[in-house]
Amino acid sequence: MTEYVTRTRPRPGEAREGERGIPSQTCGGPGVPDGQEAAAILEEARGSVDPALRAALDSLPGSLRRISRYHFGWEHADGTPAAGNAGKAIRPALVLAAATALGGPAARTAALPAAAAVELIHNFTLLHDDVMDRDTTRRHRPTAWTVFGDADAILAGDALQALALGKLAADPHPASAAATARLAACVVELCAGQRSDTAMERRGPAEVTLDEVLAMAEAKTGALLGCACALGALYAGAPEEDVEALDAFGREAGLAFQLIDDVIGIWGDPRHTGKPAGADLVARKKSLPVVAALGSGTPAATELAELYALPREQGDDDVERMTLAVERAGGREWAQEQAADRMARAMSELARAIPDPEAAGGLLSLAEFVTRRST
Amino acid sequence: MTEYVTRTRPRPGEAREGERGIPSQTCGGPGVPDGQEAAAILEEARGSVDPALRAALDSLPGSLRRISRYHFGWEHADGTPAAGNAGKAIRPALVLAAATALGGPAARTAALPAAAAVELIHNFTLLHDDVMDRDTTRRHRPTAWTVFGDADAILAGDALQALALGKLAADPHPASAAATARLAACVVELCAGQRSDTAMERRGPAEVTLDEVLAMAEAKTGALLGCACALGALYAGAPEEDVEALDAFGREAGLAFQLIDDVIGIWGDPRHTGKPAGADLVARKKSLPVVAALGSGTPAATELAELYALPREQGDDDVERMTLAVERAGGREWAQEQAADRMARAMSELARAIPDPEAAGGLLSLAEFVTRRST
Repeated sequence: MTEYVTRTRPRPGEAREGERGIPSQTCGGPGVPDGQEAAAILEEARGSVDPALRAALDSLPGSLRRISRYHFGWEHADGTPAAGNAGKAIRPALVLAAATALGGPAARTAALPAAAAVELIHNFTLLHDDVMDRDTTRRHRPTAWTVFGDADAILAGDALQALALGKLAADPHPASAAATARLAACVVELCAGQRSDTAMERRGPAEVTLDEVLAMAEAKTGALLGCACALGALYAGAPEEDVEALDAFGREAGLAFQLIDDVIGIWGDPRHTGKPAGADLVARKKSLPVVAALGSGTPAATELAELYALPREQGDDDVERMTLAVERAGGREWAQEQAADRMARAMSELARAIPDPEAAGGLLSLAEFVTRRST
Repeated sequence: MTEYVTRTRPRPGEAREGERGIPSQTCGGPGVPDGQEAAAILEEARGSVDPALRAALDSLPGSLRRISRYHFGWEHADGTPAAGNAGKAIRPALVLAAATALGGPAARTAALPAAAAVELIHNFTLLHDDVMDRDTTRRHRPTAWTVFGDADAILAGDALQALALGKLAADPHPASAAATARLAACVVELCAGQRSDTAMERRGPAEVTLDEVLAMAEAKTGALLGCACALGALYAGAPEEDVEALDAFGREAGLAFQLIDDVIGIWGDPRHTGKPAGADLVARKKSLPVVAALGSGTPAATELAELYALPREQGDDDVERMTLAVERAGGREWAQEQAADRMARAMSELARAIPDPEAAGGLLSLAEFVTRRST
């Protein structure tokens, strides 16, 4: 109980100090939960949802099944079985944790179709986003479009969306219709977020506002995390205000996650992130700390804008100068404060729907996990 | 009554004569229904379903709304209103005609959300197919991807699928869940059909079997026409066997339509088709009459295979030779017999579910329309 309140609600002024509620970039530091509870929740969710996911993919015609099974990491490109790395299962874990928190173990079991549907939607968007963004690596493997071509990756994504919404609609649970409609509305939001992202790619850093980038991050990342929590609440039979509070909890935690992910993309330790230092700066990414820095009106902002306008083939010197410029322009501090603020809002929404911290435990652990992760 | 039976069921041997049940390429010839009834049904369906479609698109965020409204022909590329050519509304007309036939005017009104959903799904597949096939013209206008780019066309398509399934799932009608699940299963089939089509494009004409092309045509064209009829039946509260019969009716009529479309692609009058004579042969399309001809084991098949292997930059001479070769190899006759056979099966399924020809009138008119159209 005490822990729930003290750990999650920053005292007035505390967030402004820039560290409170901000995750360290590594797990297991002193006084920081080591994420073991979250890891166990995620592993359990993966185990619970995988049979439904495999059954859903098995229902696809051969050609689409093969592309999808490759994307999930269950098959190699040649169709032979693979050990599988289907991702961290954060979204299905949120569905199941929300259902458990509001309805106990029976609601968790009932919500499995919703957990599977959310994971199918997530993977449909990954398949399509990789085609649009020309990303060549996903979960340490070549992306589906690089292996099977654009058309196959688009069609497999289309089929996964249909599977997700169709199977959820066919679920006899009384929350099925509302959950399907909500998940479909979330897909529209995800599409709008990806659309903003691809459109912003084509614009100069100075033409992009912080509000736009925040709205894009909420649509691209927050919406599905919020929807996952809301679906869990719907399947637990929770009243409308709790469903909305859970949605807001997931959204705010999702935005905190994105802010921290962007901080890690600049200041992350390459030993933990697996990427070179300042990878997002080298790629001239319009990440949240960068856009905040550019809009700060400081001399460092001017320097950063000049550095961002340089060609991308620069040495480590420029990465260091860009990193320092974002920091001096206040980009890091802003992002950390924002993340703390978002986490505080997330916790406040959670406490509103689930006042008992013990019941909220699973959702708390997951929210801490996603905002403290090192990769 | 008499007309229903005599016009739709070929007498034994009649189909073999090659003309019975086969549409003329122009409307209104002597003894051929002039399609006025079907035209009126289609216009009424367009009028009934458009408000729901416009409301659905209006619910999209700005960027996706604009791409979708352009695709539907309601806006120009610059966002100004356009007169609009959203297609013939055959699929929503089938939903409404099936609902009317099995449940009367009340069922027709109730089925409007299903009619809108089917049309949204159809348009989602058009947006994506055009990206994959690099088609540059749709309904006499530049395709969405040529105007907005691949990413925007993919995202608008994704959003239309979500709108279709989400709005149908949210419909309070008791058939909503079954209809949503059925439409989603149909999307998977459409994706598998498009996948076969794109995969066949990369293979030589000799490597493609007639069974494969027929299966592809059923998945790509028959499935959604069948699903449209089935959804109308579901919304009329029809028993399972009637729903399946209506699905089979739409599927068989869809295959007949495809066979005739392929015949028109070779022998169609350019004044009616708007395309040069033999356009499908110039494009080396593996259409149904061509694949049938290639597999006939005749000398004409050998000649056709040789002509198909030539580079595409040939004069009218080769088009004439290819046209003759398909005809001599029996491709035209086979396609016409198959079309007649499929139409007979369609009529038999229809008569099974709706024995009263007066009640089946709308569906009959539509089936005749799609298999007698000139463009």
